[in-house]
Amino acid sequence: MDQQEKGRMRMQAEQGRSVRTDLALEVRESFREDDVEINGVVLEREKAGGKGIDISRVVIQNEEGAKAMGKPVGTYITIEAPGLKESDESYQESISKELAKQLRKLCGNLKEKQILIAGLGNRAATPDALGPFVVDNLFVTRHLIREFGPEFRKKHKLANVSAVAVGVMGQTGMESIEILRGIIGETRPDLVIVIDALAARSTERLNTTIQITDTGICPGSGIGNNRQALNRESLGTEVVAIGVPTVVDASTIVGDYLEQSLSAQGFSREETQRFLEEVRRNREESFANLFVTPKNIDEAMKQISYTISEALNDCFAG
Amino acid sequence: MDQQEKGRMRMQAEQGRSVRTDLALEVRESFREDDVEINGVVLEREKAGGKGIDISRVVIQNEEGAKAMGKPVGTYITIEAPGLKESDESYQESISKELAKQLRKLCGNLKEKQILIAGLGNRAATPDALGPFVVDNLFVTRHLIREFGPEFRKKHKLANVSAVAVGVMGQTGMESIEILRGIIGETRPDLVIVIDALAARSTERLNTTIQITDTGICPGSGIGNNRQALNRESLGTEVVAIGVPTVVDASTIVGDYLEQSLSAQGFSREETQRFLEEVRRNREESFANLFVTPKNIDEAMKQISYTISEALNDCFAG
Amino acid sequence: MDQQEKGRMRMQAEQGRSVRTDLALEVRESFREDDVEINGVVLEREKAGGKGIDISRVVIQNEEGAKAMGKPVGTYITIEAPGLKESDESYQESISKELAKQLRKLCGNLKEKQILIAGLGNRAATPDALGPFVVDNLFVTRHLIREFGPEFRKKHKLANVSAVAVGVMGQTGMESIEILRGIIGETRPDLVIVIDALAARSTERLNTTIQITDTGICPGSGIGNNRQALNRESLGTEVVAIGVPTVVDASTIVGDYLEQSLSAQGFSREETQRFLEEVRRNREESFANLFVTPKNIDEAMKQISYTISEALNDCFAG
Amino acid sequence: MDQQEKGRMRMQAEQGRSVRTDLALEVRESFREDDVEINGVVLEREKAGGKGIDISRVVIQNEEGAKAMGKPVGTYITIEAPGLKESDESYQESISKELAKQLRKLCGNLKEKQILIAGLGNRAATPDALGPFVVDNLFVTRHLIREFGPEFRKKHKLANVSAVAVGVMGQTGMESIEILRGIIGETRPDLVIVIDALAARSTERLNTTIQITDTGICPGSGIGNNRQALNRESLGTEVVAIGVPTVVDASTIVGDYLEQSLSAQGFSREETQRFLEEVRRNREESFANLFVTPKNIDEAMKQISYTISEALNDCFAG
Repeated sequence: MDQQEKGRMRMQAEQGRSVRTDLALEVRESFREDDVEINGVVLEREKAGGKGIDISRVVIQNEEGAKAMGKPVGTYITIEAPGLKESDESYQESISKELAKQLRKLCGNLKEKQILIAGLGNRAATPDALGPFVVDNLFVTRHLIREFGPEFRKKHKLANVSAVAVGVMGQTGMESIEILRGIIGETRPDLVIVIDALAARSTERLNTTIQITDTGICPGSGIGNNRQALNRESLGTEVVAIGVPTVVDASTIVGDYLEQSLSAQGFSREETQRFLEEVRRNREESFANLFVTPKNIDEAMKQISYTISEALNDCFAG
Repeated sequence: MDQQEKGRMRMQAEQGRSVRTDLALEVRESFREDDVEINGVVLEREKAGGKGIDISRVVIQNEEGAKAMGKPVGTYITIEAPGLKESDESYQESISKELAKQLRKLCGNLKEKQILIAGLGNRAATPDALGPFVVDNLFVTRHLIREFGPEFRKKHKLANVSAVAVGVMGQTGMESIEILRGIIGETRPDLVIVIDALAARSTERLNTTIQITDTGICPGSGIGNNRQALNRESLGTEVVAIGVPTVVDASTIVGDYLEQSLSAQGFSREETQRFLEEVRRNREESFANLFVTPKNIDEAMKQISYTISEALNDCFAG
Repeated sequence: MDQQEKGRMRMQAEQGRSVRTDLALEVRESFREDDVEINGVVLEREKAGGKGIDISRVVIQNEEGAKAMGKPVGTYITIEAPGLKESDESYQESISKELAKQLRKLCGNLKEKQILIAGLGNRAATPDALGPFVVDNLFVTRHLIREFGPEFRKKHKLANVSAVAVGVMGQTGMESIEILRGIIGETRPDLVIVIDALAARSTERLNTTIQITDTGICPGSGIGNNRQALNRESLGTEVVAIGVPTVVDASTIVGDYLEQSLSAQGFSREETQRFLEEVRRNREESFANLFVTPKNIDEAMKQISYTISEALNDCFAG
Repeated sequence: MDQQEKGRMRMQAEQGRSVRTDLALEVRESFREDDVEINGVVLEREKAGGKGIDISRVVIQNEEGAKAMGKPVGTYITIEAPGLKESDESYQESISKELAKQLRKLCGNLKEKQILIAGLGNRAATPDALGPFVVDNLFVTRHLIREFGPEFRKKHKLANVSAVAVGVMGQTGMESIEILRGIIGETRPDLVIVIDALAARSTERLNTTIQITDTGICPGSGIGNNRQALNRESLGTEVVAIGVPTVVDASTIVGDYLEQSLSAQGFSREETQRFLEEVRRNREESFANLFVTPKNIDEAMKQISYTISEALNDCFAG
């Protein structure tokens, strides 16, 4: 998350609308008038079989929608599952199956593809370790298929899967995109699935939401700086990103709270905005290196990464 | 921290003055009028040799002071070292030496004592793992002295040291005090040194401050509920506590920020208080399981626990 | 295993019969004449439902048997499951159920008891970490029952469970027995279940065998040095031990191999013995700090500890 | 080590001389006649300043030497330091400085180079985790130099350093060489330094020896299969390898012991060889997945990886 995040935050600070979130659904919901249409943006909701799992689908259809949303054109699927952070095995299995189903819907038959899973983030910083943890539990097959041949693959109905935890720039001195481009050049996958921890705006989203998108990972917005984006354009292959929000930026949570409180106390929108601007200037520095995260984050990360890896393994074999 | 924290938070919520901090220095500083004396409370400050390390000493002398401060009678030494969280070896060594010096000042010659080090907190939750991490690096000697006799001890000038990481109630089903009482009954130390992660009020304190106190660990306040206190009274032996604030409660940080912002905007004290009360009611639930912690917490915990264990080893041998 | 092991090894070196193993079944099998009766020792075997899980039961009935076996009077149940080290979930579940069944058979209805689980061994040395790893996954209830009362316990049909990882003497300065005696004195359980990694003689036993015994843990033998034994006599309460062999001593494996090789080459028993004695003298030093362990030990320990903790949780609740 | 090791073992089994070791020094020493010259192989020894650190240098000068040694043409420096596995800080510093000195001698001024450090091996299997552990402690600079420019680099006298832990084929589905080739293609370093755990023949070498070589890593031998070699030829850039033996193959230790014992008992060389062959056939299977490693391997790996990373950091900055 490290370096991307900084870029992202900078971009958002420059935008008029300061919605610090990686979730397209949160951006969509930030438009207060829920039923009003935004041109170029479609939102659909469905229930997933009465298990307390909700599926939303935000489709950004064109540049107008991309501009309004501050996110690139593409499909964003959100799985909301309040129990994702808990350790109820059968419920986890339901989430895992739903995630597998949504992945198949988005990508087609994964068993016919050659796939590289890229875990982003810092293994040594728990809320950022989603990517490496998912990679730890994957069933990779590329080396087996190379050794035993296409017959073996056909017989066992296997996707051709390789995986890598790319580390963070502070540890490698390299950008994720450099490492991935190199590996892609050598191994030529059809599809790259990127796993990363995300930042949310709302604390209620933490460890309860999975976002899947065919836009890859794009710090900032669809417009402007694309240098570090991991997408079809930059990697030269299809890219799908799976993310879970694990932190809220400390300054976001404070800003949010102030905004709500002031509105509740009857301040006008303009007064509130002026007040917030003031606050933002002061707090930026002291909050810059802080995040808000749940007390059980270590336990939750183990649980969630396992559930995601199971969904992937389910798509790839058998 | 787990269970103690809950008790502590409950107690503080009931107090008029809602200062959610384990640091006596922060409580003392919360009395805005810095120079005004509080009866029964003495504050002294010194610089530690130009290394950017500050030492403060809050002495609560009597019940009047205890009531004003919401903390038991005793001495609270605070080492403030902004570089504590960083990995400059020679600076860490300076902190370590200062900590050793202050410990000797408070406890006398530790090499003549039989000491039990008790690491509190949850090894699997990084910001709460200070206690177990310190215990991991200690040089224990009790078993060696039992095997090689008092001659050996004399020759090497060793304290008699044993150590235990007691775990948290959610993992053991037992309170820290039960485990410690049992071990103390069997091994009869003269002094128990308790290591624990603390909660601070100010984010600037995080991973930059060490508190040493001869009052032990006392959730809530000196008055009232002493059931879970780890002190001379409850453990039947001298108790010194060493703590480092590693988290700020999410609701504290928001409350603080609101308070400052409203004051800055010219609201009266009464208005601000009423406003805050309102906010507190709403936010309690959504913030209950969140904390604010620095982004480099995993790295910082390794560094700080090592520095503390080196200070202890320094007091115990050689 | 640390200190106990040393005692154990010393004791065995002094015995005529040098069988370096913690498994009663291996001792029994070391008597070449399989069908010949040993007075005071009964061996029964059963299959556990066609899943490739074998159950053996060695009962040492009296002092004569104890002397012959070099192990104290009591029952030793061995679960042999070649797949224990692998990650086939449904097979692991079968093992877990079998272990729960055998535990209930040995101890009666565990839900009516107050139980302390003690994880022995060194968390930081993988093949010795079985105890701490099992403790990490337990569902403890003692604190809940204390908070919500006997009604709660009855309603949910819960055992009263507490758990502790006692650490090793090199890290705590205390013997396991001192820590356990202290905790038992404070919390008064009816039953202590001790979990520990064991040493086997045969590499085929590694990570494939679980031993359950009502004799506790007894370094050396039933006769002689009982100082460090963890049993009813030393702890004042019923003790059951669960162990899995995770290492073979390096000198055992070499000795074993030499013995087999020499026999195969037609050397007489006396010649072989003399040869081995010679070898033993030379090798002791260079092999003293080495062990033989499987290459996948880190993965295997996670798997096995989880399976054991699931068996325990199954006995304790629901 | 995983896949390379297999290749290596296979190759060695096919060679007449079955010396299962990655250390050139051990191969050289296996020629019993110490003073007899081997054509094309030079051995020099020096003491490193009275600290109990010995330096040897084996130079394989030509194909004749390579054939005799079963290792490619190049320089092999061995640092023997019995205290490497212990935690004496000042001694570790001496080793670290010696390693830095030897690296500079072999590679020239590292501060002028662009260097990629590649940590091989499995982070989750302690004796194989040397590579990833070293990478965790490196001070990388490539991203800083890219951000702050050549002025910054000059001012601080920094090498341009990037680092990656490549994982093992069972976890990534890719060979180390594929990942490295990709990253090298993108980032164009002048020098690749590969860090890997090695296998030794003698248990006394474990965690006491560091080998540095400019031949890279070459499973098997210099002749024949070069598919997986990591060297100038395969990576297209200068390659230096740093390794520490952390395991002895279980079958090696048994075979070695048998050989010594039989010789000591007066068996002729032919008898011993026939005997060993017999044994080898039987034992291969049962020992295939076992290794011999020191009891304190977890502690030792932390210590050694830190010492190596400090040597590298020392070469790269300041």
